[in-house]
Parts: sequence; C-alpha cells; structure tokens
Amino acid sequence: MSKNRNVSDALAVIHSRKSVRSFTGEAVSGEDLEEILRAGMAAPSAVGRSPWEFVVVTERATLDSLREGLPYAQMLDKAGAAIVVCGVPAKAHQQMVEYAVIDGTCASENILLAAEALGLGAVWTAAYPYEDRAAHVRTVLGIPADVIPLNVIPIGHPTGADKPKEKYRAEMIHRERW
Amino acid sequence: MSKNRNVSDALAVIHSRKSVRSFTGEAVSGEDLEEILRAGMAAPSAVGRSPWEFVVVTERATLDSLREGLPYAQMLDKAGAAIVVCGVPAKAHQQMVEYAVIDGTCASENILLAAEALGLGAVWTAAYPYEDRAAHVRTVLGIPADVIPLNVIPIGHPTGADKPKEKYRAEMIHRERW
Repeated sequence: MSKNRNVSDALAVIHSRKSVRSFTGEAVSGEDLEEILRAGMAAPSAVGRSPWEFVVVTERATLDSLREGLPYAQMLDKAGAAIVVCGVPAKAHQQMVEYAVIDGTCASENILLAAEALGLGAVWTAAYPYEDRAAHVRTVLGIPADVIPLNVIPIGHPTGADKPKEKYRAEMIHRERW
Repeated sequence: MSKNRNVSDALAVIHSRKSVRSFTGEAVSGEDLEEILRAGMAAPSAVGRSPWEFVVVTERATLDSLREGLPYAQMLDKAGAAIVVCGVPAKAHQQMVEYAVIDGTCASENILLAAEALGLGAVWTAAYPYEDRAAHVRTVLGIPADVIPLNVIPIGHPTGADKPKEKYRAEMIHRERW
C-alpha cells in the first residue's frame, strides 16, 4: 500500500464521520469555525470557479429563527453554530445550476469531515431542493434570490450518542463494466 | 483547539488534495482501489439511502474507450484505473435526481480525498450533466439508462507536476447573515 504518512488518520476521519444530531450545547470556537470554512474552500470545483459562499451563524436568536422553519434541523437548539453553504450559479462554470450544486456539495462534504477531524459533530440538513425550506433560509439570513442555500449544517460538540454506520456493500461495486 | 489526534493529518489531506492530471502510468493496486471505494461508501446520504453504485475500471482497452469520447479525460492514457460514480435516483430519498447527484457527489469527494491520502492522484472529469458524455460512458460500460454516471475519476500515481492551489477567500464568508 502507500508510504504516505497521512493515510491512516485521514481515512480514519472519513470512516468516523457520522451525522451528529446530539450536541452538548457548548459553543464552537471561532478558530475551529475558521478551520472548517478553510477546509470547505479547499474543495474541487468545475474549472476552478469556486462558485460558493458561506454564511456562518453563531448567534442564538438566528439559530432559533432558522430552526423554526426547518423541521429536520431541530438539533440547532443545542448546536454551537451553523454553516449554510450556498451555491452561486452566476459564478459557476457555464453558469450552470448543476455545478453550483455539485461544487457546493464537495465543499459541504469537506466541512463535515473537518468538523469530525476537529472532534466536533455536524449534519447536513437540506434546504435545496425544497423551495419552502430554501425560502425560509433566504429570508432569515438575507440571502439573494439568485443564490442557492444548499443546506444548514449545525455544528457542535457531540454528546457521543451518534455513531458511524458501516455502509460498505460489495455489491455496489461493478468490476470493469456494469 | 481540538484534542483529536486525527486533526492535523486529516486537514492536511483536505488541503493537499489537488486535481491530478499528470500520471506516471503505473498500475494502481487492487488494495488501494478497495480502500478508495470503501471511503466513497462512507459518505453521508439523504435519509441514509446510499443511492450510488460504482464502476471500477483497470483494463487498458476500456480506459482507452472511455477516453475516446471524453475530451476532458485525456489523462486516462496514463491513469492506472478509473472509478465512475453513479447516482441511482430509484434508490434516492423521494426518488429525487437531486439527491442521487448530491449523495453521489459526497461519495466522489471522499474518493478524491482517499486517493490523496493513499499517495495517489485523481481528478473529477464530468459526465453529468452532459447528455453526450453520459451517453458515451453508459455505452462503454453498459450502465442502465435510469442510472446517472456523474463522472469518470481517473486514478494513478502522480508525477508531482500538479500542485494544490490556495483557494481561501475571506470575502466568501458572511458572518451571522449575508
């Protein structure tokens, strides 16, 4: 296998990442949020356009306002922060919505992994592709109509209740052809 | 900051990942491909549906056939393997194409990171959302019409010519609201 020193820990983080919905209520440090956002922006994007912007929320009143219109983001009540990853079609390769979504999704996955690496927990709760949820997030945060809020990612200190799942299924792999 | 032992190496891999287009031509071991696919399947998906399947190609004739119809995947000529990540709408939450694409994209980002962690290189070359490229990939690999080949990810040993870019831009971060 590899001689790369990063191998074991990086793969360990990929496998230990889980959707964390149970938070202690502790704050998340500004330093950790900065590391997480930095990881998000290290994601690949089509033709290097980086068609993403981020809204980072730490104020309790705003977290609560987001939560009110998002039935699947109730764990915001104990989260220390949330990051909303936005796809910006106007900046995407060929101005395609598809690339704004795909590139923003790569950034989001990096954010989820970085949170795990830092000993924090996070979970993707969807805004896109639901018109009503996206509208709520836009209203609460003042996001322009031509920008797509992909998700609301609550971030916090995990209680430990959430565990990674084994999701490997050999039958999902096709060898040489389908 | 964190006490997590994984922090530095996992974040280092996120930041050292780059689109690798220059390969030595060496083969990629079956063991490494297995690790990479395993990382792909560890990605999150909406409501845990894992709506993805993978085609892993190592045969030179098939890599060349893929290359013939994909102008932006010419680096397949020196790649040791390729993975095609497929989104399967029929298995996705609410059978939504959007989730097949988003969940498959999270798996793809894990694949790119795992390749980097193993000392290999990889690059996302798009099939979706281009009808012609997707049709070519479907034909070469026998992928069903209702399955979406998102990409062709050539994987190989990097020559070292490709370097990570600094993509951090503070102005992409909005504090508390847009």
